Amino acid sequence: MTRPAQLTLTALPDIPLIQPGDDLAAIILNSLAACGLRLEVGDVVVVAQKIVSKSEGRAVKLSEVKPSPRAIELAEAAQKAPGFVEVVLSESREVMRVRPGTLIVEHRLGFVCANAGVDRSNVAPHDDEEWLLRLPEDPDSSCARLREQLRSATGVEVGVIVNDSHGRAWRNGTVGVALGAAGVPGLLDLRGHPDLFDYALQVTQVGLADEIAAAASLLMGQADEGQPVIHVRGVPYSLRDGNARELIRPKELDLFR
Amino acid sequence: MTRPAQLTLTALPDIPLIQPGDDLAAIILNSLAACGLRLEVGDVVVVAQKIVSKSEGRAVKLSEVKPSPRAIELAEAAQKAPGFVEVVLSESREVMRVRPGTLIVEHRLGFVCANAGVDRSNVAPHDDEEWLLRLPEDPDSSCARLREQLRSATGVEVGVIVNDSHGRAWRNGTVGVALGAAGVPGLLDLRGHPDLFDYALQVTQVGLADEIAAAASLLMGQADEGQPVIHVRGVPYSLRDGNARELIRPKELDLFR
Repeated sequence: MTRPAQLTLTALPDIPLIQPGDDLAAIILNSLAACGLRLEVGDVVVVAQKIVSKSEGRAVKLSEVKPSPRAIELAEAAQKAPGFVEVVLSESREVMRVRPGTLIVEHRLGFVCANAGVDRSNVAPHDDEEWLLRLPEDPDSSCARLREQLRSATGVEVGVIVNDSHGRAWRNGTVGVALGAAGVPGLLDLRGHPDLFDYALQVTQVGLADEIAAAASLLMGQADEGQPVIHVRGVPYSLRDGNARELIRPKELDLFR
Repeated sequence: MTRPAQLTLTALPDIPLIQPGDDLAAIILNSLAACGLRLEVGDVVVVAQKIVSKSEGRAVKLSEVKPSPRAIELAEAAQKAPGFVEVVLSESREVMRVRPGTLIVEHRLGFVCANAGVDRSNVAPHDDEEWLLRLPEDPDSSCARLREQLRSATGVEVGVIVNDSHGRAWRNGTVGVALGAAGVPGLLDLRGHPDLFDYALQVTQVGLADEIAAAASLLMGQADEGQPVIHVRGVPYSLRDGNARELIRPKELDLFR
């Protein structure tokens, strides 16, 4: 019987609700142990942005935000609370489009996304305050830290990705993308690799970390944060160090801005 | 020990080089048997566009294409053969951007993609002719036919997706997307589902078939067509019938056209 190539994603069980200051590496290692998984070289751990942001204390109270005149003005067009828009602006380089419910912005890290990734859902239970959760300060660094903590505890170098769900131009629906990465290439460069009949490949760079992020997102589900950490085994490429900045197309090279 | 949720992708082994008229369902069933996999309800089979297109006879000889004056004119800006541009135009509704090496078009099926998905690589071995491979005539129908053939042979209703790798606005690198789907929703609608603390979800629709397509693309690899069929088990949603047209954002609702 032929032994086929497999890619296996496992949703790590029993990840608790994350609070500021929580040690994600320890929580992940506990969960891996609980389901009998040992990290191996080439594995990738994908962590949902929400729990990284929470552990890093990236939530702010809406009632404590003082909106600027520009936020108040944009809030009307976006039909959002001025304080929400203020936090979005504080996380953005540029507002690209405004429509009811959404500001499409260039995030300060370069991503084009809705509302700068600021989210008011799921922040705290039994709390009448409205909290706004911002993306991690520097998701590539969050991944590098987590990778180092996992290496330090296990001796194994794995890839780490922080993912989130983003909308897209031209297509309906969100898909998982990599906000941060460490120990795994953002982009896989196939330029110059021959294809089956030695033609030059027309498709030259694959968004590897984004494909892993999308696969993990599929298993995470979307409606709560029950499964915010996914273990991935079998990525059919040698992992090298890398980051998610590779995935950001420079504004001046983008034909659709 | 906690039994975690898993998503398992298997690259079906020993898929032969596909020729026009080949019976993909029979080839897939042979390969499933060879690696001891039996289809189950909820499984999804993802098939690379190239082999679907080849089996459907969608290749044309470059030397037999007669370029129009418009193709000759665009070919200069795109630095491509006029015959290639002619085939791209014949597959497109609208040319959106032209740059050296690439025409970004709206494909007649609504996808925004490079060169209308027309590809000159991998078409035929030991052949001095240049062949151009077009996308399937109707990828949703290709999926529906394949799904019905698999059901007829096994009694099991699975989801079928035809995927391809597309470039994107704003981000570098290609990712797998669904060109066609049957027995699996293109979009998963989460509007109204409560999240963990009963906030309304801001992210409302997930590009489910695209996330499955991206996951499969990761395992297919890109540099040849050695692994063009991926079996997916463990998609954590009830499959319903659906198609890839759900994923196409109507032009008038797209903020980035």
